[in-house]
Amino acid sequence: MISDHKEFAKEVDARAANLFKATPDTMRAFRGLMESAGKDGALDAKTKELMALAIGIAVHCEGCINYHTREALKKGANREEIAETASVAIEMGGGPAAVYGAQALDAFDQLSG
Amino acid sequence: MISDHKEFAKEVDARAANLFKATPDTMRAFRGLMESAGKDGALDAKTKELMALAIGIAVHCEGCINYHTREALKKGANREEIAETASVAIEMGGGPAAVYGAQALDAFDQLSG
Amino acid sequence: MISDHKEFAKEVDARAANLFKATPDTMRAFRGLMESAGKDGALDAKTKELMALAIGIAVHCEGCINYHTREALKKGANREEIAETASVAIEMGGGPAAVYGAQALDAFDQLSG
Amino acid sequence: MISDHKEFAKEVDARAANLFKATPDTMRAFRGLMESAGKDGALDAKTKELMALAIGIAVHCEGCINYHTREALKKGANREEIAETASVAIEMGGGPAAVYGAQALDAFDQLSG
Amino acid sequence: MISDHKEFAKEVDARAANLFKATPDTMRAFRGLMESAGKDGALDAKTKELMALAIGIAVHCEGCINYHTREALKKGANREEIAETASVAIEMGGGPAAVYGAQALDAFDQLSG
Amino acid sequence: MISDHKEFAKEVDARAANLFKATPDTMRAFRGLMESAGKDGALDAKTKELMALAIGIAVHCEGCINYHTREALKKGANREEIAETASVAIEMGGGPAAVYGAQALDAFDQLSG
Repeated sequence: MISDHKEFAKEVDARAANLFKATPDTMRAFRGLMESAGKDGALDAKTKELMALAIGIAVHCEGCINYHTREALKKGANREEIAETASVAIEMGGGPAAVYGAQALDAFDQLSG
Repeated sequence: MISDHKEFAKEVDARAANLFKATPDTMRAFRGLMESAGKDGALDAKTKELMALAIGIAVHCEGCINYHTREALKKGANREEIAETASVAIEMGGGPAAVYGAQALDAFDQLSG
Repeated sequence: MISDHKEFAKEVDARAANLFKATPDTMRAFRGLMESAGKDGALDAKTKELMALAIGIAVHCEGCINYHTREALKKGANREEIAETASVAIEMGGGPAAVYGAQALDAFDQLSG
Repeated sequence: MISDHKEFAKEVDARAANLFKATPDTMRAFRGLMESAGKDGALDAKTKELMALAIGIAVHCEGCINYHTREALKKGANREEIAETASVAIEMGGGPAAVYGAQALDAFDQLSG
Repeated sequence: MISDHKEFAKEVDARAANLFKATPDTMRAFRGLMESAGKDGALDAKTKELMALAIGIAVHCEGCINYHTREALKKGANREEIAETASVAIEMGGGPAAVYGAQALDAFDQLSG
Repeated sequence: MISDHKEFAKEVDARAANLFKATPDTMRAFRGLMESAGKDGALDAKTKELMALAIGIAVHCEGCINYHTREALKKGANREEIAETASVAIEMGGGPAAVYGAQALDAFDQLSG
């Protein structure tokens, strides 16, 4: 469980940058995929970021919860939206999603502070 | 892979009804969880349904894809929104999400027809 | 979704037998693991079979649901126990576990008939 | 990997309490689901707690392993039963379940000490 | 469980093509990711295809098992290599991987016939 | 996220050893499975270790990433091979695999240093 989400954000980004250097073509393609999937369309970018967060909670990925909470914050998501995203994840993931959804709320509280 | 989503919907519902009869307290509590997590709030009910669909794609649950595509349809989701939901799932789930995301689009096409 | 669990049982077993012939050392070791993990001990064999079924539901494995429902039946599990196993899986897995838990109950009804 | 399971238990509970405040209806419904799924029935409450632990191991959820080991302890589970629960998870989850099953045993040793 | 892998291959491809039409930018980016990740490098393309198959087995994705078995065949993989790929998946995924690994072998036998 | 992979390796091994003592028959059978699945055959042992690592990344198991990076190192895997293994995992697992793939590269850098 992550205690300092601002510090964790730096580690997540630093390691992603190392992987980018080690396998630039694949990571560039993946970045293209993220940009394409996440851009405003029939659904707006903030909604898509929350959707990515919901999946991050459902598949128990702490780094993803940190990253997509940050991105959702940048796109204007508020605390209620994070909590409701966690709620949908709990509907679809039960107890484990409650554990990781609580972590998303904690990430929001720390990163927005 | 599901070939007839209208027929599959009947099977999914019939089996859920059997489970409801066999374990009514738990299923009633779970239904309460679904209703609470899915209702209009900071995020609207259609968005939450698409979010549940995104998770269903990411965790490879055909019955969930069928059910949440139906519910998203009832709440007014259109084909572009289903396709963009699949896109976010692919960002978060790679190849397997492409397979199950394609199934969500197929479900939409059959169920909306 | 499986419509005929007796037929499905034959397919699951036939394919496992083919894999056994193709990679006998690994499959023999895996069978040893199954036997050791599943035998009577501090927990009895029926309870362990239901526990394996709970995991099969939680990880969305139809072949596992079929196989471990069969084994639980052989070890004397009844319909209430299958339904309660599904209930625990729903607590730990939400909507997808409801879908696959309903399949476990259906498997029991067909295989015990 | 968790080094202090008593400290971790406090964090898991504190974060769950925060999520409860942020989304009380959903969390109340989820608590109702836990209570209903976990109560004595055809299977006793201790067995159900161990079953929930087995799923927590199989889906790699450290917070769940901590929580359900605690609850299993309260309901009288002993060390052999935790080890056999891990064994069934390994049968159904291979190497990753060995890693998280070892964590369940460590949680038991720390929390029962 | 898939009974006809040649027919299933057509369905998988047809649905992917529909998704491609519905969300071309994301699918083009994903195709770029596949091509980059799968090309000859420090590891050869056949090995990478078998690695993708191993993951498809471990995450219980029938469409992925069909697709990556086909691609592995095109790149020269033989039956022993498919069986050993299934073996590694069983080491890392236990019983469910045995079920889906057996499906990979069946896919190979049908698609190479 | 693991900051010291050499220290983490000791913890992973110590806990596995404890589990071995608590449930020796199952762990001995599991070790037999690992040895059988991992030995030189149609695919060489290094390739199989990288395949196990790919699965460990795809299923988000930090202990597995640590262990199989160590074993891959012993069998002669180099940094490019680890990075390409991560790439295949990203193709098959999207964003979460990028997070855990970056951890595999970090593990390699620390453990080979």
